[in-house]
Amino acid sequence: MNRSRWEEKALQVAVCKAIRDVPDFPKPGIVFKDITPVLSDPSLFSGVLDWMGNMPGEVDVVVGVESRGFLFASGLVDRLGARFVPARKAGKLPWRTVGASYDLEYGRAELEIHEDAIRPGDRVLLVDDLIATGGTASAAVQLVEGLGGLVIGATFLIELSFLSGAAQLTAPTRALVQY
Amino acid sequence: MNRSRWEEKALQVAVCKAIRDVPDFPKPGIVFKDITPVLSDPSLFSGVLDWMGNMPGEVDVVVGVESRGFLFASGLVDRLGARFVPARKAGKLPWRTVGASYDLEYGRAELEIHEDAIRPGDRVLLVDDLIATGGTASAAVQLVEGLGGLVIGATFLIELSFLSGAAQLTAPTRALVQY
Repeated sequence: MNRSRWEEKALQVAVCKAIRDVPDFPKPGIVFKDITPVLSDPSLFSGVLDWMGNMPGEVDVVVGVESRGFLFASGLVDRLGARFVPARKAGKLPWRTVGASYDLEYGRAELEIHEDAIRPGDRVLLVDDLIATGGTASAAVQLVEGLGGLVIGATFLIELSFLSGAAQLTAPTRALVQY
Repeated sequence: MNRSRWEEKALQVAVCKAIRDVPDFPKPGIVFKDITPVLSDPSLFSGVLDWMGNMPGEVDVVVGVESRGFLFASGLVDRLGARFVPARKAGKLPWRTVGASYDLEYGRAELEIHEDAIRPGDRVLLVDDLIATGGTASAAVQLVEGLGGLVIGATFLIELSFLSGAAQLTAPTRALVQY
């Protein structure tokens, strides 16, 4: 195992240890992965941001998905020298937007970005805390591509791999820890 | 004017120029201050994070207030070596929480943080995009102090000074631009 692979493994172990399982949240039968202990460990969080930002080639834009994607995005753009574009739930962004809808467990929701946020040819990294079914991330990819951007990667702290969300995405997908 | 004061002035001018006025958002008669152009200018955003993090003395914790405070918090904790504690709307945090309510234009809302997020004696910097009446920020200060933390400062990109929000806060308050 080379050095960087070893470091990734050590980071994975530390992040897994930090993540707190909260049973029956937000409803009975769900075990919620609480990531706040990762945020509140400065060196661990910094390691996560390093890992997320470790992309081949230039990144022009980081799209952070509301609201837990925002928890990572400013640290990421800061180290990548990239623009930070928030993707928000419908009605939250004040300027002219483009929207894409996605399925929720019950019904549908819509994600929006500003129509001037992405320029044709922009190399875009998508960030969120967790990928489950991939619905939100797919909507974000659709928005970026609709404005002529190129999604060069989607990065997550956690992947619920039994829900096969990564298979829904056309973009290369990385998650630090899998369940 | 010394160098750092000059740099602050230049940053203020650049941020004012970047902020976009959106009339009649979220409702008729309101002129919304759209900060997304600040986020999408890497060197400007980095300058804002530098300015926000320029605090005398150690900062143990940055409390970012949902959801636009999150836009700044990870960049801030990253450069301060501080813990990132999100303050969220009621029902969003999975673990045991403490809550404080605050007035909205119509009715009241509640802000929560995890009860183990702040340790007695922690030096805490509060961050949000904007201070208006100061209701949300006061609730956040109350939560931190209730857990034994010391709010050493509250930092904002924008202050709507005609609403006198800073006067509501017991903590030292800074905003980069005032309207």
